[in-house]
Amino acid sequence: AAPAGPMYGMVGKMTAKPGMRDALAAILVEGTAAMPGCLSYVVANDASDADLLWITEVWESKAAHAGSLALPAVRAAIAKGRPMIAAMETVAETAPVGGAGLR
Amino acid sequence: AAPAGPMYGMVGKMTAKPGMRDALAAILVEGTAAMPGCLSYVVANDASDADLLWITEVWESKAAHAGSLALPAVRAAIAKGRPMIAAMETVAETAPVGGAGLR
Repeated sequence: AAPAGPMYGMVGKMTAKPGMRDALAAILVEGTAAMPGCLSYVVANDASDADLLWITEVWESKAAHAGSLALPAVRAAIAKGRPMIAAMETVAETAPVGGAGLR
Repeated sequence: AAPAGPMYGMVGKMTAKPGMRDALAAILVEGTAAMPGCLSYVVANDASDADLLWITEVWESKAAHAGSLALPAVRAAIAKGRPMIAAMETVAETAPVGGAGLR
């Protein structure tokens, strides 16, 4: 069913400390597997920068995204992953229009 | 089933000519609805720039992405949308690791 209000999305960059990208990516993928209201959450290696991860997200609403930050699995992933993170940047906040692969 | 080789992804920006973003987004969403090997294709409005679209894609392989450019629906969308596009930029090419919402 189409979500009621506008969807909420983000494009973010996360720089891992050297040699830690794969471990960080695995933590993110695992911790974000079952988040209510999450229509898409993709963790991707940058093709040229060996330390860089791209995280692109689509949520049913901004509130659904905010709510996820309180989930035990997400909090655990953040705590576990934080020591591996050198830098984080929200590149864009978005209002997704549609597309393929949105649950 | 997990794809055989590495997945392929892109993060792109598309600036619409003034007042044309919604029409352009609709064309992109429609033209990209059924692309073989496409695991995720999200068209999203930038939250602050009224002319800017973010397009984030995940494909089973780089070849699957390349193949999509020959699809009639995609070619039609590109032709239809091109007059509405002021600028396009590939922000990143990626190798997606995983996440939620990937078909």
